[in-house]
Amino acid sequence: MKKFKDEVQNNLFGIGEKNQYGEFFTGQSYLKTLLDSPDTDLLMANVSFEPGCRNNWHAHNDYQILVGIAGEGFYQIDGQAKKVLHPGEVVVIPKNTKHWHGATDDSWFCHLAIMKKSAKTTWGDPVTDDEYLA
Amino acid sequence: MKKFKDEVQNNLFGIGEKNQYGEFFTGQSYLKTLLDSPDTDLLMANVSFEPGCRNNWHAHNDYQILVGIAGEGFYQIDGQAKKVLHPGEVVVIPKNTKHWHGATDDSWFCHLAIMKKSAKTTWGDPVTDDEYLA
Repeated sequence: MKKFKDEVQNNLFGIGEKNQYGEFFTGQSYLKTLLDSPDTDLLMANVSFEPGCRNNWHAHNDYQILVGIAGEGFYQIDGQAKKVLHPGEVVVIPKNTKHWHGATDDSWFCHLAIMKKSAKTTWGDPVTDDEYLA
Repeated sequence: MKKFKDEVQNNLFGIGEKNQYGEFFTGQSYLKTLLDSPDTDLLMANVSFEPGCRNNWHAHNDYQILVGIAGEGFYQIDGQAKKVLHPGEVVVIPKNTKHWHGATDDSWFCHLAIMKKSAKTTWGDPVTDDEYLA
């Protein structure tokens, strides 16, 4: 039994649509855009992950902020141990820092992602099962 | 009976401490800082309001983003009608725009506030009961 399906599917921001950037993910993710305004230089979206789903190793050329909303997730910065991300926790990924994020293997997860509109993302290899479960 | 006390007091980010900027508020508010990192140019905090609490009319010299988290709130931009803000809703206050925000008169409320570290706030008059209840 996978955990937190109802909490993530009914999270306060909504789960949105199947993620059009899915080619850079292992497993199924969903994207709900929350901010589309000319009055700010930021993008904000709610990203939801089915159990086991994670994005590829990648880096942004500016910061990214992850805000845990529901369920239970993982994130890892290259060269550091994988960490658990819970609802209410806020993580800053520094610019030009290789990392990945997603759900845990037995739980759904969603987090807000906040970054500059101008930030560029460089996508790398998928996170292998050995890396994901390490 | 005031609504959403438990939801706001137990919101996923925590309610934090009594707001040190309370001189610019009518009623009791609370502040929980969520971001304190040299790797981003943003501030993020969760601001909680007891029923009837609102901040003074004010303006920032850069954008501010409000993200409804729990309860039910109001916000108003000068010259426009007061609007209700619910959990999951995201509002952008453009730079140099006079506005106020807070709880409704019969509900607790909390929202995330996101703005640049460099933004300056100019505080104005309290929101009168006539303005608040209009």
